[in-house]
Amino acid sequence: MPVFEKVLIANRGEIALRIHRACREMGIKTVAVHSTADADAMHVRLADESVCIGPPPARDSYLNIPAIVSAAAVTGADAIHPGVGFLSENAAFAEIVEAHGIVFIGPSPDHIQAMGDKITAKRTMTELGVPCVPGSDGAVASIEQARAEAERIGYPILVKAAAGGGGRGMKVAEGPENLEEAFLMARREAAAAFGNDAVYMERYLSRPRHIEIQIAADNHGSVVHFGERDCSVQRRHQKVVEEAPSPALNAEERERIGRRAVQAIAGMGYRSLGTLEFLYENGEFFFIEMNTRLQVEHPITEAITGIDLVRLQIQIASGAPLGLEQKDISFTGHAIECRITAEDPVTFQPRPGRVENYHVPGGLGVRVDSALYAGYPVPPHYDSLIAKLVVHGATRNECLLRLRRSLDEFVIEGLPTTIPLHQRLMADPSFLNGDYHIRWLERDFLGS
Amino acid sequence: MPVFEKVLIANRGEIALRIHRACREMGIKTVAVHSTADADAMHVRLADESVCIGPPPARDSYLNIPAIVSAAAVTGADAIHPGVGFLSENAAFAEIVEAHGIVFIGPSPDHIQAMGDKITAKRTMTELGVPCVPGSDGAVASIEQARAEAERIGYPILVKAAAGGGGRGMKVAEGPENLEEAFLMARREAAAAFGNDAVYMERYLSRPRHIEIQIAADNHGSVVHFGERDCSVQRRHQKVVEEAPSPALNAEERERIGRRAVQAIAGMGYRSLGTLEFLYENGEFFFIEMNTRLQVEHPITEAITGIDLVRLQIQIASGAPLGLEQKDISFTGHAIECRITAEDPVTFQPRPGRVENYHVPGGLGVRVDSALYAGYPVPPHYDSLIAKLVVHGATRNECLLRLRRSLDEFVIEGLPTTIPLHQRLMADPSFLNGDYHIRWLERDFLGS
Repeated sequence: MPVFEKVLIANRGEIALRIHRACREMGIKTVAVHSTADADAMHVRLADESVCIGPPPARDSYLNIPAIVSAAAVTGADAIHPGVGFLSENAAFAEIVEAHGIVFIGPSPDHIQAMGDKITAKRTMTELGVPCVPGSDGAVASIEQARAEAERIGYPILVKAAAGGGGRGMKVAEGPENLEEAFLMARREAAAAFGNDAVYMERYLSRPRHIEIQIAADNHGSVVHFGERDCSVQRRHQKVVEEAPSPALNAEERERIGRRAVQAIAGMGYRSLGTLEFLYENGEFFFIEMNTRLQVEHPITEAITGIDLVRLQIQIASGAPLGLEQKDISFTGHAIECRITAEDPVTFQPRPGRVENYHVPGGLGVRVDSALYAGYPVPPHYDSLIAKLVVHGATRNECLLRLRRSLDEFVIEGLPTTIPLHQRLMADPSFLNGDYHIRWLERDFLGS
Repeated sequence: MPVFEKVLIANRGEIALRIHRACREMGIKTVAVHSTADADAMHVRLADESVCIGPPPARDSYLNIPAIVSAAAVTGADAIHPGVGFLSENAAFAEIVEAHGIVFIGPSPDHIQAMGDKITAKRTMTELGVPCVPGSDGAVASIEQARAEAERIGYPILVKAAAGGGGRGMKVAEGPENLEEAFLMARREAAAAFGNDAVYMERYLSRPRHIEIQIAADNHGSVVHFGERDCSVQRRHQKVVEEAPSPALNAEERERIGRRAVQAIAGMGYRSLGTLEFLYENGEFFFIEMNTRLQVEHPITEAITGIDLVRLQIQIASGAPLGLEQKDISFTGHAIECRITAEDPVTFQPRPGRVENYHVPGGLGVRVDSALYAGYPVPPHYDSLIAKLVVHGATRNECLLRLRRSLDEFVIEGLPTTIPLHQRLMADPSFLNGDYHIRWLERDFLGS
């Protein structure tokens, strides 16, 4: 007996396919929903049933709650998986789904709501013992107050215009000796630039990494973590390459942040998969946000743990116990994911088009998650992610070499893709050394 | 510094690609050789260099030793990998290669020679403490001798015409009470059918499984095994599906046969990868032959051990130590390989043709080793194997379900393939229960 009879997958592209595959392997029938632009999409072709839910753009189809809930009712789906993006962190959607007697494969609407609000999320995590980037509680009015706050926050300190943006009105004080100068200059610049000299202060992270902890919690009080992912290679806050484990963390740090994450999740009474995102610098972790859904980069965690996270997520939603304890989760080797997008690899302009030729790399340690096929017209209406290349190796070095040969084998013709960008990245000394941070790709590698 | 600068791969198809990938990941340049029929083949496209070594059939190209050795000399290759089939178990080839100062990536010519002769191989293994199927030492002349031999061999016993074949002159004695009847009837039938009443005797295995042990040994006396593969699903002595671990073995049996294999290999002073093949029934293993080369089905062992066997084979050939001990090898989950051939799935007639459309399954736990691509004309001259689908799962059941969904996703259009046969197999209760033996596929499943 499968845990559900039929699951509606409220998404498209590679992630819809990913969820379809998990369902198939669990003996669950799948219902695809699709826009008129996606009638021939792979996620529709492979599903057991499909329902057209409207035209592009997404607000008229993939974000159309009544259409999706109706599709589930009409097809008799007993659960809905929201995937990634679209409605996956929409508390109202989760609530409406459950109000229709359909299981929402995700956390409770309350948790989606609470973690969707960044201020609430940070306050919650602070209360649960998870540190955020330390800062002043609002504006700092005088140098005396600044000194007191600085003692509490710790150096280096960033003094920022409250009305600021774009780097103006931002000054760094490396130590107490620079504080007065930084404070006064930031105030002056803020006044000049924004007509408002209010400034606030927070710990300055010069080369932080984005480290996130994957967790899973069931309805019965069990919580585990699956280690970290290092997603510091970003462009405009979009992850480009992710790896697990992080080349920056040591065993003590890994164990510490994993334990903290588990404690916080247990304290919240959360259920489902989830990810706690942190900035990391010099052995310290600072919570930035929590994603209450599956992440695009979940396959690298699957590669090093051997655990099917989507299957687990579906099992949890059915009310089943986790069935694993922390000691059952071990880490083997190293995994890296390259997000391949339908973009010009230099300008990053989205360039949808028809896939004329498509050939994926194969062999040991190579996984491709993609909804492309030869002849598929990549539609212009959606996210430009077209393929995830996920490579696993016994060591980071083996993984890097395997990734290179896989990128060399990958053929996507008919439209530009970011494969050449990834090929350059995999030959870059800083990347090869694991020596990068969240501003590295844009500032140093792309030099923009 | 890579272990070799440049390796010539004396093979074609998926296995040439497999070896190319290992070389690429080790920083080794590759030389492809090809027949005129294979000028556009994938193994040629991906190699760093390629040399045409003659026309089909294979004896004029892939078996043409002077042409291959010349290609290595001309391109400056410092090693030759023979792959699987063709010259991979040709001791003369290995000898000639080494005589030209080129490393043969495999065992010594002596070991190839010794294990290539089945009688020598069995005698060697018997001396090294590995049991073979017990039998009479030549013809059995009288019922008195038959009784004495039977005591030694153990029941049930097969009495076989020395000149026999096709099942004629074969009788089974379940115990001492049936021996005389079986002996006399086999003699009578042998005389009638072959004009020669000589019979010999051996232990009768009614439902044996084909179990093989993968080993690796270096030049420095280290030997390890990588567990077993169950290759009992065969048609005309060709393996069709392989799995690891075997659903039939328990932990004690696995440990016992692994240890025996390691002892024998150490006793032989063997180096390189190798496989000891056994028949298995009721807890007993009987050596049948040793393959002194890579096996087609090696990926299932890679899946459950996480070890790249081809990389290891190349490292050993370079003189490097194994770098692992038995305790470093652990087994995770379950893996199954389906050999997909360009054959009619009912008649098994080879049916080469042009691949019109090609789309491989993706996602978690799925590996495809294939040299196909859309537009590729599968030539009629070679083995009909066109793709290996290798699936890994946490459990055998997960693996089976993943295999089913992967087969459903696999698109090879333009020529018939055995994908439908594998789909039927993966739905067969006996296969699902692991309840099969070497005659099961032909006798029971195909009913032929």
